[in-house]
Amino acid sequence: MSDGAFGDTARSIAASSHITERITRLMTDYSAVIDNDRLESWPDFFVQNCFYSVIGRSDHEVGRLAGFMYCDNRDMLVDRIRSLRSANVFQPHRYRHIISPPRILAVNGDVVRCETSYALIRTSVPEGAMVVFSTGRYLDEIVFEGSDAKFQRRVAVTDSDRIDMLLVIPI
Amino acid sequence: MSDGAFGDTARSIAASSHITERITRLMTDYSAVIDNDRLESWPDFFVQNCFYSVIGRSDHEVGRLAGFMYCDNRDMLVDRIRSLRSANVFQPHRYRHIISPPRILAVNGDVVRCETSYALIRTSVPEGAMVVFSTGRYLDEIVFEGSDAKFQRRVAVTDSDRIDMLLVIPI
Amino acid sequence: MSDGAFGDTARSIAASSHITERITRLMTDYSAVIDNDRLESWPDFFVQNCFYSVIGRSDHEVGRLAGFMYCDNRDMLVDRIRSLRSANVFQPHRYRHIISPPRILAVNGDVVRCETSYALIRTSVPEGAMVVFSTGRYLDEIVFEGSDAKFQRRVAVTDSDRIDMLLVIPI
Repeated sequence: MSDGAFGDTARSIAASSHITERITRLMTDYSAVIDNDRLESWPDFFVQNCFYSVIGRSDHEVGRLAGFMYCDNRDMLVDRIRSLRSANVFQPHRYRHIISPPRILAVNGDVVRCETSYALIRTSVPEGAMVVFSTGRYLDEIVFEGSDAKFQRRVAVTDSDRIDMLLVIPI
Repeated sequence: MSDGAFGDTARSIAASSHITERITRLMTDYSAVIDNDRLESWPDFFVQNCFYSVIGRSDHEVGRLAGFMYCDNRDMLVDRIRSLRSANVFQPHRYRHIISPPRILAVNGDVVRCETSYALIRTSVPEGAMVVFSTGRYLDEIVFEGSDAKFQRRVAVTDSDRIDMLLVIPI
Repeated sequence: MSDGAFGDTARSIAASSHITERITRLMTDYSAVIDNDRLESWPDFFVQNCFYSVIGRSDHEVGRLAGFMYCDNRDMLVDRIRSLRSANVFQPHRYRHIISPPRILAVNGDVVRCETSYALIRTSVPEGAMVVFSTGRYLDEIVFEGSDAKFQRRVAVTDSDRIDMLLVIPI
């Protein structure tokens, strides 16, 4: 075939772009369910046997696993949303995730490891006061279930070692 | 041809990446004309028969169209920049848009619908005080005019229901 | 070959996506070494004969080169990190870069020029107070050394004309 080696390169680039696009989309879809207050869909981003935590950077650096939030299977994620909904009759805040493009660190078989920086900004309603609520990075292990990319492990490492209120929503 | 179905997949991925790249570039070009104070070029991002508004989330959710700013054709955008320029001899603020990667929601014929999160940070000059001025998401309908991607509809839904000053620049 | 002109287009799109991906990755890798406090790796992002500066927008607009920080070869970058490490026994702040997708402005032979918006958020430790420390844009000239993309020139133009403390880390 005339396109020979160049065709292979184009295909390999296309495959690499494809993974980058799918991972990027997973990140923005995840942000959207939280920011658009469709929290009931949040557990769907995880495989059943998942790990999710939110942990301060100092704790993370010394190897701790449990931080502000810790869930080691999807049922715990579902429970968390349920209790959040029953505890809060009115959500007085809105959240907005802004993320940098994700950095894919490794592709090992079916698992993609990546790191993504985020800033989470909280707006109070109806006052409209805006604060940077949290910044940090996601450390992720992502697998593909059919056509879906899902988190097998998501650790949100917060730059701050404190979160200034009861952490009610996921990050 | 030997690359058969795989070649088709590579082409389809390349086409999808291409749309994502063009849409992403439209978003960053749009931000740049505002942030670099080249506002006279801002209406060029829209088709003549366009719709542009900036609206608080509560108003948007109950179906209102008019919010902090409302324009239903490109001439209104041109007028807005003209009046902004004549009213302000000196612009005492600088703006910076930071956006997440865009989420393409649908491609219907020639129209691409997408949603993009933004944070807009304002710096006062010469003091240098920085505040998060607005966060939210763009809800867009984009069409292609020749080689250009343009907004047929752009609605900036702000997370806050209030904007704490006269909104003079577009978001 | 049956894919003819379309195959060429697919290849050209793949090549363009490939440059975009490499440039994007350079931006996020650069942010990560600063945010993850691996500053010793920071000079590796530059060619030996590089130019790096951090400058306020007003100074930049009137053509000045020297601003808050100015280095015209990689050894100066290495020195800067060394003196920063010797001066600070404990770093009381953490930094987080959030960037918009980069805008590639031109590809001239081996040099890619691009512009990327950033927000840099600083968290104090252990208090956890977060402030927007700087926003602005990178104006870059990037070259490829083998498989690596490196900065030949990086100018961080800050939206503020002041930086409210001794600028110790690079932006």
